[in-house]
Amino acid sequence: MSSEIKPYGTLQANTHITSDRWFEYGVHAYPNHTDYSGAVWHGTYLAWMEEARVDYLRQMGVSFADLVELGCDLPVVDLTIRYHRALRMGESAIVRARMQDMSGVRMTWDYEIQSLDRQETYVSAQVVLVPVDRDKGKIMRRLPANIQEALMKLAQ
Amino acid sequence: MSSEIKPYGTLQANTHITSDRWFEYGVHAYPNHTDYSGAVWHGTYLAWMEEARVDYLRQMGVSFADLVELGCDLPVVDLTIRYHRALRMGESAIVRARMQDMSGVRMTWDYEIQSLDRQETYVSAQVVLVPVDRDKGKIMRRLPANIQEALMKLAQ
Amino acid sequence: MSSEIKPYGTLQANTHITSDRWFEYGVHAYPNHTDYSGAVWHGTYLAWMEEARVDYLRQMGVSFADLVELGCDLPVVDLTIRYHRALRMGESAIVRARMQDMSGVRMTWDYEIQSLDRQETYVSAQVVLVPVDRDKGKIMRRLPANIQEALMKLAQ
Amino acid sequence: MSSEIKPYGTLQANTHITSDRWFEYGVHAYPNHTDYSGAVWHGTYLAWMEEARVDYLRQMGVSFADLVELGCDLPVVDLTIRYHRALRMGESAIVRARMQDMSGVRMTWDYEIQSLDRQETYVSAQVVLVPVDRDKGKIMRRLPANIQEALMKLAQ
Repeated sequence: MSSEIKPYGTLQANTHITSDRWFEYGVHAYPNHTDYSGAVWHGTYLAWMEEARVDYLRQMGVSFADLVELGCDLPVVDLTIRYHRALRMGESAIVRARMQDMSGVRMTWDYEIQSLDRQETYVSAQVVLVPVDRDKGKIMRRLPANIQEALMKLAQ
Repeated sequence: MSSEIKPYGTLQANTHITSDRWFEYGVHAYPNHTDYSGAVWHGTYLAWMEEARVDYLRQMGVSFADLVELGCDLPVVDLTIRYHRALRMGESAIVRARMQDMSGVRMTWDYEIQSLDRQETYVSAQVVLVPVDRDKGKIMRRLPANIQEALMKLAQ
Repeated sequence: MSSEIKPYGTLQANTHITSDRWFEYGVHAYPNHTDYSGAVWHGTYLAWMEEARVDYLRQMGVSFADLVELGCDLPVVDLTIRYHRALRMGESAIVRARMQDMSGVRMTWDYEIQSLDRQETYVSAQVVLVPVDRDKGKIMRRLPANIQEALMKLAQ
Repeated sequence: MSSEIKPYGTLQANTHITSDRWFEYGVHAYPNHTDYSGAVWHGTYLAWMEEARVDYLRQMGVSFADLVELGCDLPVVDLTIRYHRALRMGESAIVRARMQDMSGVRMTWDYEIQSLDRQETYVSAQVVLVPVDRDKGKIMRRLPANIQEALMKLAQ
């Protein structure tokens, strides 16, 4: 049997960073992710992509929960998703995320959700985020310095 | 007090069809729709758009549950969504859906999610569906006749 | 076709209060509510029961969103649910909610989810809520006066 | 950086079996799990408990997806849950599951959701499952032999 469950925070067993800066996050299609079709409900992929993003930021030293606590949110403002093939209950997949561009405070992320052997692509997507000042409810003109620094690393 | 709850199926009190063929579906942001931000989680809008689509089809005489039972599914293959403004817990909105195009078996729907007074737009989106033969797992070359007929009415 | 969608807040077409103080809230099983089984996922009923509770409070003059804004939350602390029969996609049901007891600040609600003709019971449940001071993170010793008043009406 | 993501199926890094037969499944509170309160929505715990159950069965050699494919479902018929303390966004926890009793075809599972250091209990719960013949829609009188065998190991 395995040793004890590791505290979240160190690079987890279900995540991986490739040499070309794709962050990989493993997911599994449990019953609550599915709909009547026996496959994953089309909104579930948005949850998985958000989870991968949160984990990737953490790898770069940014705790999303702390960011929110400090008054900065990172809402999705644009999302384009193409569903190539359904992931069925009981199947596993890799969510691949990469920061593709950072233009001003506007961050564009690319996504691919693939089979474990990379032979099938279930979903490809692009997501745009902007930082919002939670108190003012407005887009921030610039990011807090530590976040800026971490995100610049992702975009390099 | 109100009279009894009407059976689902007749045009419901929370739906409406405009003269320019927008189907309108009323929604309310309950706790389960929200996330940590106090606003609606960005994936929840996909559920609401799907609900509006199912109700619109029903208005045109197509029961989505029957369609699935008969072996035809209508999965989303492409989705583009822009988040203009967050809908906060306790707020209501109108999901407006309109079949914009039907090219072969490929259906394109336009969406707008607006405030009750139509002064605010929370979300705009476009969704593409195709009919899939559930047994074969393949896109159908043509729609069943009754569905084709109902959908053509929407596209007129 | 119907007239325009009514603003949320007045007694809605999908709600009803019976002479013996059951609040009734109509629901419909859309695709996002289901799982691989073709029936409603067992956690979805908790969302519907919460929605009924929020609407019932509103009928009694308490806006849940305002309550939260003012620093008072009403989390579930105990929940017991029995699943008698599955509600399948495309079916409608009535969520019946009644405040059964108020002991100190502890509120107990009874639930039944039934078919529209009341001949089938899908779910029966009991939910206990307590008011929590959001700033202190502690159970409140007494409810704010206006809420106390509204809730006492429910418990009578 | 880590090596590649392991295929699902071998004992995963986020699971563990204790000497007294508790199966432990690590979870993390991502944005999609939360509600307006900043903590995990009360229905999310049901998803996590179901995930732990599916993974535990897999450890014992039973693929839940295969079971369903073969015509046997394992729906929840009774669930009791106590919410002791909220798990906030960004926090991790351990879902502990143990088959407590098997009486005829009726399985009772105990659950505890605890902090990583086991000092806090967020949730305790009990869940009852029965096997259902998917074609007939009825409770099975006896389990398929291989499932019976695997489950008996859990109950020992």
